[in-house]
Amino acid sequence: MTRILTGDRPTGPLHIGHYVGKIVPTLAALEHADEAYVMVADYHAFTTHYLEPLSVRDAVEEMVIDYLAAGIDPEKHVVFVQSQVPEHLELAYLLGALTPVSHLERVPTYKEKIQETGRPPTFALLGYPVLMASDIMVYRGDTVPVGDDQVPHLEFTREVVRRFNQAYGFDFPEPQPYLSHVPRLAGLDGEHKMSKSLHNQIDLRMSAEETEARVTQMVTDPQRVRKSDPGRPEVCPAHQYYEAFVPEEAEDIATQCRGAAVGCVACKSRLAGRINDYFREHRARRAEIASRSGYVKQVLHEGGIAARKTARRTLDEVHAKLGISRLGH
Amino acid sequence: MTRILTGDRPTGPLHIGHYVGKIVPTLAALEHADEAYVMVADYHAFTTHYLEPLSVRDAVEEMVIDYLAAGIDPEKHVVFVQSQVPEHLELAYLLGALTPVSHLERVPTYKEKIQETGRPPTFALLGYPVLMASDIMVYRGDTVPVGDDQVPHLEFTREVVRRFNQAYGFDFPEPQPYLSHVPRLAGLDGEHKMSKSLHNQIDLRMSAEETEARVTQMVTDPQRVRKSDPGRPEVCPAHQYYEAFVPEEAEDIATQCRGAAVGCVACKSRLAGRINDYFREHRARRAEIASRSGYVKQVLHEGGIAARKTARRTLDEVHAKLGISRLGH
Repeated sequence: MTRILTGDRPTGPLHIGHYVGKIVPTLAALEHADEAYVMVADYHAFTTHYLEPLSVRDAVEEMVIDYLAAGIDPEKHVVFVQSQVPEHLELAYLLGALTPVSHLERVPTYKEKIQETGRPPTFALLGYPVLMASDIMVYRGDTVPVGDDQVPHLEFTREVVRRFNQAYGFDFPEPQPYLSHVPRLAGLDGEHKMSKSLHNQIDLRMSAEETEARVTQMVTDPQRVRKSDPGRPEVCPAHQYYEAFVPEEAEDIATQCRGAAVGCVACKSRLAGRINDYFREHRARRAEIASRSGYVKQVLHEGGIAARKTARRTLDEVHAKLGISRLGH
Repeated sequence: MTRILTGDRPTGPLHIGHYVGKIVPTLAALEHADEAYVMVADYHAFTTHYLEPLSVRDAVEEMVIDYLAAGIDPEKHVVFVQSQVPEHLELAYLLGALTPVSHLERVPTYKEKIQETGRPPTFALLGYPVLMASDIMVYRGDTVPVGDDQVPHLEFTREVVRRFNQAYGFDFPEPQPYLSHVPRLAGLDGEHKMSKSLHNQIDLRMSAEETEARVTQMVTDPQRVRKSDPGRPEVCPAHQYYEAFVPEEAEDIATQCRGAAVGCVACKSRLAGRINDYFREHRARRAEIASRSGYVKQVLHEGGIAARKTARRTLDEVHAKLGISRLGH
């Protein structure tokens, strides 16, 4: 029995870096799930985007459209929004009562996020790993699809689980990572990872024309000034994109680049075509899903009910053991 | 319009120090309330008693019995248990997203509690003032009965309210203290304040005989060795108790003590009788309430429903403004 919890923070439109780095591995992981909960983590988005709540709201719907378009099936998996399941907060409170502040301060991403936001850290940001542990535990999740960078987070979750199990005599599973070794797609600047805030991204909702325009702007090997200069595919983001979207052509284009047989303009034009091929079906499904009035809301409504049902069962067990009665409901 | 939120942490049986220091002033404050929410703060109890959840459970019921016996009327005021209203946590999460960690670290009681528990501070302990702000705000409370020592806490709450109002354009009232200048009753040791953990207390649930036995053990002026030595009422806890429970006799007994006209044994015996007179009616009501099978549960069930109704209304307004939909319910 494999029970998966996966999710993402709705902080803006998903881009093609999310697609290959997160959605594709998630789809692979879901193949192995007996039960899966796919969460739009709006509370986690508030840890950084608390001054733009309406941008979070818009991102929620967009994210679900991309999930469904990519093939996450709401008939098979529970697709829901975190804030609709207050049980996450109910369990997180009890986990927080057992979690030393010093452990939270040591989580590596805490300091990273402080630098990223450039603001003094808030209580919710500090507590991010506690809520994440609760997100997994309320569904008794045992498997979490993560990239290599998320492994320390999951180790923290396991510590929380162990402490809770030990304090109160529970048997919550210690969730294991479902690791995917997907290279992080560089942004169009070739320097940073793809990110909306750096404007170096291609959003999934962009049209074929917009995508082509973005690819055209992509930085290539800066040492290659003329077409006759030999290029270095290993430092060129365009080559990385070939490997991500058309791996079968990557070798060929690299050879041409090194031999100065293809110029950057032509290489990027071909790449834009390939990316558009790759996302043609996704875009069509995306448009179809977005056109169905009320459909996304309906999916989230049903997903919310299903998620709450499982989460409530867990909380009822926890409360029974801790002597918290269920009155006033 | 005065809307009061008041509450206590169920960490053990209430003692007579709670009664004069907290319950009596609360009753006075409730006289002025148009609407009042009387909360048994079990979540707050978990910040220190997380390893004894069942002791918290037992203390909840005992506390409500004492509330009702003291005259808090569940027909007029909403008496409820905090954990039954998850809306407290839902609002607290959003408040926590706006609250800098550094502000929480500066709250004076944080360092006190760390010393008190002798354990590394936990996330829930650090967040205590955020949850307290939410406790008040979910009912749009404008008045909070507090002792002088709680005033800094309430100033923190007002800061949280201002920040939230400003960030999202709300008009939550900045709650004001309803101050009571009640001297803190010393424990039977005459040294520390009354507290179960120091075994220097007289519980409200103790019988007249138990109360008399406890008063007999009370430390008096240590310099008064023989009955013929003049006593110093100003350093004697027995005198403080006379002032708290029979103020009309305090002057007389002090004169006799200074003049060595009464010995400590006789003084304490008289005091025990007076304390038993003071609590005679309370004890009778206490026994009567405890004997009604299911009554306390019923009160808390109805209180929970009423509290959730108000709290849900507040959360619906907050969610509407922040773009959080209510799906999955």
